Amino acid sequence: MTDSTDVAGLPRSWFQRSDAKQERLKAARPFSSGKILNSARLVDALQAIIKPGDRVALEGDNQKQADFLSRSLAKVDPAVIHDVHLLISTISRPEHLDIFETGIARKLDFSFAGPQSLRVAQLLEDGKLEVGAIYTYIELYARMFIDLTPDVALVCAVQADREGNLYTGPNTEDTPTIVEAAAFRHGVVIAQVNEIVDVLPRVDIPSSWVDFIVEADRPFAIEPLFTRDPRHITELQILMAMMVIRGIYERHSVTALNHGIGFDTAAIELLLPTYGESLGLKGKICRNWALNPHPTLIPAIESGWVQSVHSFGSEVGMEEYIRARSDVYFVGHDGSLRSNRVLCQLAGQYGVDLFIGSTLQMDSDANSSTVTLGRLAGFGGAPNMGHDPHGRRHSSTPWLEMITSKAPIVRGRKLVVQTVETFREGGVPSFVERLDAIEVGKHSGMAVAPVMIYGDDVTHVVTEEGIAYLYKVEGEERKAALAAVAGVTDIGRQADPKRTARLRERGVVAYPEDLGVKRTDAKRSLLAARSIDDLVAWSGGLYEPPSKFRSW
Amino acid sequence: MTDSTDVAGLPRSWFQRSDAKQERLKAARPFSSGKILNSARLVDALQAIIKPGDRVALEGDNQKQADFLSRSLAKVDPAVIHDVHLLISTISRPEHLDIFETGIARKLDFSFAGPQSLRVAQLLEDGKLEVGAIYTYIELYARMFIDLTPDVALVCAVQADREGNLYTGPNTEDTPTIVEAAAFRHGVVIAQVNEIVDVLPRVDIPSSWVDFIVEADRPFAIEPLFTRDPRHITELQILMAMMVIRGIYERHSVTALNHGIGFDTAAIELLLPTYGESLGLKGKICRNWALNPHPTLIPAIESGWVQSVHSFGSEVGMEEYIRARSDVYFVGHDGSLRSNRVLCQLAGQYGVDLFIGSTLQMDSDANSSTVTLGRLAGFGGAPNMGHDPHGRRHSSTPWLEMITSKAPIVRGRKLVVQTVETFREGGVPSFVERLDAIEVGKHSGMAVAPVMIYGDDVTHVVTEEGIAYLYKVEGEERKAALAAVAGVTDIGRQADPKRTARLRERGVVAYPEDLGVKRTDAKRSLLAARSIDDLVAWSGGLYEPPSKFRSW
Repeated sequence: MTDSTDVAGLPRSWFQRSDAKQERLKAARPFSSGKILNSARLVDALQAIIKPGDRVALEGDNQKQADFLSRSLAKVDPAVIHDVHLLISTISRPEHLDIFETGIARKLDFSFAGPQSLRVAQLLEDGKLEVGAIYTYIELYARMFIDLTPDVALVCAVQADREGNLYTGPNTEDTPTIVEAAAFRHGVVIAQVNEIVDVLPRVDIPSSWVDFIVEADRPFAIEPLFTRDPRHITELQILMAMMVIRGIYERHSVTALNHGIGFDTAAIELLLPTYGESLGLKGKICRNWALNPHPTLIPAIESGWVQSVHSFGSEVGMEEYIRARSDVYFVGHDGSLRSNRVLCQLAGQYGVDLFIGSTLQMDSDANSSTVTLGRLAGFGGAPNMGHDPHGRRHSSTPWLEMITSKAPIVRGRKLVVQTVETFREGGVPSFVERLDAIEVGKHSGMAVAPVMIYGDDVTHVVTEEGIAYLYKVEGEERKAALAAVAGVTDIGRQADPKRTARLRERGVVAYPEDLGVKRTDAKRSLLAARSIDDLVAWSGGLYEPPSKFRSW
Repeated sequence: MTDSTDVAGLPRSWFQRSDAKQERLKAARPFSSGKILNSARLVDALQAIIKPGDRVALEGDNQKQADFLSRSLAKVDPAVIHDVHLLISTISRPEHLDIFETGIARKLDFSFAGPQSLRVAQLLEDGKLEVGAIYTYIELYARMFIDLTPDVALVCAVQADREGNLYTGPNTEDTPTIVEAAAFRHGVVIAQVNEIVDVLPRVDIPSSWVDFIVEADRPFAIEPLFTRDPRHITELQILMAMMVIRGIYERHSVTALNHGIGFDTAAIELLLPTYGESLGLKGKICRNWALNPHPTLIPAIESGWVQSVHSFGSEVGMEEYIRARSDVYFVGHDGSLRSNRVLCQLAGQYGVDLFIGSTLQMDSDANSSTVTLGRLAGFGGAPNMGHDPHGRRHSSTPWLEMITSKAPIVRGRKLVVQTVETFREGGVPSFVERLDAIEVGKHSGMAVAPVMIYGDDVTHVVTEEGIAYLYKVEGEERKAALAAVAGVTDIGRQADPKRTARLRERGVVAYPEDLGVKRTDAKRSLLAARSIDDLVAWSGGLYEPPSKFRSW
């Protein structure tokens, strides 16, 4: 080891982090055999490895959860381990917050809280929890390579071999990224696995990056978040989907795209083999996708629409279907999916031309948010997909079509499409003068209001009334275009019929009839699949829906 | 294998890509033993594996080059292998274009051409080469997960073991990303290595992702691109660096940042331990970096300024220094750097608060480009670092300080700083009415002018005259602020002294005296190192500069 003196002339070690790691590894020896931690002694091992104040990255995203590790972490003695700084994508399990109650953890950097968001807010108010910041998924990983490098990473995989190589199975997701941030800066990497085997189907993470593996008491938790039952798709959603296909995908020749999760986008996926086919669009639109393995894409795949799908994560029940459709998905030589959130986010930002997603609230500038009063939820990945990446330099037809200026210096834009029904359930208007997010942000002491997608990034807004081609206009005219599709909400009532007529003539606003879409055609019979059962049938029995989606 | 019928009722295979891969692997058998290709038969092996029209990703970035593979590819028979679609980051070796002369390749997607850019333009004009698009580095990788998935990936590493696990050494860079895109969609991955060994220092890429390894005839080519000899730093650059430290880093509390390559930023790095120290800024600014291992950062590291550096790639000669400063850099358990371009780009976009880089030309809207007439060069990574990522949601002090509006919905901004001397060598003005890039774009048939950094993303412009805080103003006032620091260029002469005085009062423009920077202090003696030799001394002899930088 090479030491030197610091500026004050004192001897300084440049190996403090690697020395500290060696100490931690040594402390875990009583509870391990080689790289294998004794499952029965995991709490003791964590207590030996983690130090007070450590930054601990705990794998817990919107799909998979290192829950044997999180449950064990909650059992350590707070007198020994306290004031941990927790880095986690998604707060979703009770023990993620129990550790703040008991003092094991104190500071939190996270991306999404969902159902636990009320409790986060309460702990914050009680002074038991300090929020560093609320991130999108990839921002949090980005900081792990800058100033939030984990001292300990707690991750999960399906299998490990005895050397510690990991097989993640289809839900590779964030594991390689978290492990890389820790492993290459002297962090200790501990992976829980469902089982330890002699030979892995494939290696997703080399043992060279892993310090310990531990066999979990039960397979890691996983949620089917990307499944939408076609039974719940409404005719309004079908109408909007028809408009999107004609008025956006066909018009701008969109071949590479990303769909947010929701019934609006599920409807589009299910109309491709029927309505899309009738328009002769197969092969012309929607060929290459950055998308989780949505079951509702099955009919389009089976009908030959889809060339490729790269995924952030996987989806429960899609394993055998993916394996059998190996031309379409990214799979390993073992046949199972390799997902990767960071690379799919990269692809979604720089490799595709369009994002479409739904929102619950939109203001007259087209700012939107799914945040509602009293919840501090976070956004996960939508803000990254739903913005125009100014760092893009290569061109494509849709990207160039967003240019409206004749100036010598211009750039294209990613198509950022928001679908929104003018009224939510219970007759609550979706178009509002002021987003709830503004109050939520103030109440939670956030530096800026938690906006999901900023209006200046939005190129198109689709409602059941029509499409506003916002990229074509600015200022007051932009507000007028939005009002023209905002129905009978207060915002919509501000639309001046004469002005709207002119905007329609100029193609700034299009109503269904302007697009050749008949409202009366928007029937559920147009969906390629009208139930989960239909999806199973399309898949030839390969798709195996989780029981909550089975009605038979 | 599960087959099905397509929409026309014909039997359809869903395993065309994996079947094709098996064919390719089989065809290579005569030239291989297990995963090891016979070096003497590499040309034959490539001829057996690659098919006409294939998309071939060839590793060749601005640092390392898979040159045994590229030289061998240039030797295949164009009657057998032709019309290849080449995906490559940096066109830098003659054989990269020879293959277009001979017809082996036809279509090109690339990021940067540099010295070969004239020849690219010529081949284009001769109809021998077709450009898909010119990308930034990460855009090209993004497309590899969407619609440009490689059929064959030709990459390089330092060592492989006999199973095909790869050790990349410090220049990990793009290899894992290219390999992932190919390996998980049935592409054939071939890695040239400097040597095949029994045990690797660490595994960077698991053998599970690699189909073939081949021992190269000589170590892969590598360029020291990030080394700037302090002897060439001018006093104007020192003056600008002093202004940046006082007027930007100190003012906005910038702790996490990225420096572009150049003498301007080298000057800043070398002033931290002297001028920065005298201002009491150690620990307050410039702690966490997304940066290649610039030798000019050595004095700041040795003086205790730097907590961490994550790198896109490595730098020749810095290997032993990095190994001995393991608290600062990202290293494997073997002690050598692990770089990763995609993850460092992620960190640079979402994890740091500031980018600073130099440009050759800037117009009155602060659009800038390094493109000059007659060259079709591309930009590599600067556009990605030099833009404000609208997908960011977490806040930090510098990011929030860019907010000037009192509206309820706002967002912060990344600080994007451009340094530019008002005149280039030979008295050519840097500030121009019209960027050369506009003509270059037109002449090359590009859809939009090749702008490196768009003015609307720029928050600060620094010249030897002063700093324009562009984020504070809009429209005509913004142009006036820029003119106020544009010296005696035509743009600068348009500045109205009275208006400039008001802009200075409001802090929109600052001259050195407004920042407490004395022009007469801007001496070379202020540099912590004034030569490569000084850098070696600072490093305690650990930095081993390449011979072209040695003067002793």
